[in-house]
Amino acid sequence: MNNLDLFIADSRRSVDDILDKLIPSAETEPGRLHEAIRWSLFPGGKRFRPVLVFAAGETFAAPRAKLLRTAAAIEMVHTYSLIHDDLPSMDNDDLRRGRETCHKKFGDATAILAGDALQALAFQVIADDESSPLDIRLRLISDLACSATKMVAGQQMDLEAEGESVSIEKIEQIHRSKTGELVVFSAKAGAVIGGASTEELQALAAYASKLGLLFQITDDLLDVTQTTKSLGKTAGKDVSAEKATYPSFYGINETRKLAHSVYADAIECLEPINRQLDLFHAIAHFIRDRIS
Amino acid sequence: MNNLDLFIADSRRSVDDILDKLIPSAETEPGRLHEAIRWSLFPGGKRFRPVLVFAAGETFAAPRAKLLRTAAAIEMVHTYSLIHDDLPSMDNDDLRRGRETCHKKFGDATAILAGDALQALAFQVIADDESSPLDIRLRLISDLACSATKMVAGQQMDLEAEGESVSIEKIEQIHRSKTGELVVFSAKAGAVIGGASTEELQALAAYASKLGLLFQITDDLLDVTQTTKSLGKTAGKDVSAEKATYPSFYGINETRKLAHSVYADAIECLEPINRQLDLFHAIAHFIRDRIS
Repeated sequence: MNNLDLFIADSRRSVDDILDKLIPSAETEPGRLHEAIRWSLFPGGKRFRPVLVFAAGETFAAPRAKLLRTAAAIEMVHTYSLIHDDLPSMDNDDLRRGRETCHKKFGDATAILAGDALQALAFQVIADDESSPLDIRLRLISDLACSATKMVAGQQMDLEAEGESVSIEKIEQIHRSKTGELVVFSAKAGAVIGGASTEELQALAAYASKLGLLFQITDDLLDVTQTTKSLGKTAGKDVSAEKATYPSFYGINETRKLAHSVYADAIECLEPINRQLDLFHAIAHFIRDRIS
Repeated sequence: MNNLDLFIADSRRSVDDILDKLIPSAETEPGRLHEAIRWSLFPGGKRFRPVLVFAAGETFAAPRAKLLRTAAAIEMVHTYSLIHDDLPSMDNDDLRRGRETCHKKFGDATAILAGDALQALAFQVIADDESSPLDIRLRLISDLACSATKMVAGQQMDLEAEGESVSIEKIEQIHRSKTGELVVFSAKAGAVIGGASTEELQALAAYASKLGLLFQITDDLLDVTQTTKSLGKTAGKDVSAEKATYPSFYGINETRKLAHSVYADAIECLEPINRQLDLFHAIAHFIRDRIS
């Protein structure tokens, strides 16, 4: 295991622990609702967003204890969006994080409600986070809400684009809204809690935006190059849904080249930040090399 | 028009104005999403929850300007819950507020996303409310989130109770969660913004809890005694869905008597509050007499 692997494993443990504390047990009434929430949250996926919160926190010297609830809140919003996006009327997917999707296991109604509850809980855990000053909490809530509404707008645009011929600019706009906003917020949140300057936040947001793009590009590549088993979610579904993706637009080889160039852009964005940047470098590298 | 009618009409205008300012126009991309949100929000229903926010604000001397965003946020959460509850996998309803439900008009996917966006926006408009101090905003956000998760739990319990034989205690638990929590929060929010004391808040919460119960009892009665046209939503649907309601449990006449007794309880709860209570009296009276 290298340092990043250790950091990721440790981040996952941290966020899983706090999530387990914050989510009512499956014995709390109505049990089926809490069981459904826990089904989708645990054991969880890559925890990419919490890893980013913790990486930014570490870079800007915020103690882990001050980052926990924000990391958990972001993972709650991300997980609620997966639950809703997987519904039959949306992307209609049966497999997520290596197991049945929430609605396949618990029915559509409970899945919708599990997502709804997760979103409300996300805002509550930040509002009640006594480790941060009042103004920081309000800023995090406002920014998280803003990212969450843009994420929803991105999913709406994505659904409308299915089967349509769309430009690469449109594809990027969709990804920026659907996944980029929450990824950028994750990095910024850790830095805000650490007291980063406006210039540092700007540079970090630019880096995280490139990182989100890189993540999407490699996700698109994995969808066409990997098996359902190795992904833990349905492979090849972009093609079957006639989704506009980077490989469908540029072909696989050019998309790989694009990934390398976006990686270089991401690293360059970090230049104005005069801190120890190893973690951010390693994360970008790790995402790029998901495709190798 | 009596004083309460004027107050209600004025409250509706206030909340509609601020909602119109806070919700992106139907021209904002993705237009269909914002059109769907506006379809469900306007012209709107009784605006019962904003009326309560404004009534509590007036009673505890909070200026209307400090109440607007909170009233709007509550109406957003209420409207998102209606959109989701009407979905085919939930209560499967075609008619709401006198027109097609959101999913009938825009499809299930857009309806789910419209609800999701409304919930996020609700928290954002309070977080960004510069008319209130930071601690008040955080308290409102935490309490709203708590009411919203209980509302979701109530809907889950309601779905699970359909077709089952449940006790009157269970029915009351469901209503308290599903509608009571947000009604209580509405009254408390206005009083919190007005700086009410802990004792006053407790008394007000007790009143609002009775008011929520009274609202549910009269709603159940209206469902069996009124037409779909006069309700603006499908009449008789509780019976056809085999829902446990007050009339199904006690019969219509006993339920009417219960409404009068709950009304008297509500008024009694107000006793510890040494303020001008006309508005609260008139509101309880108004809700009781919906059934006459």
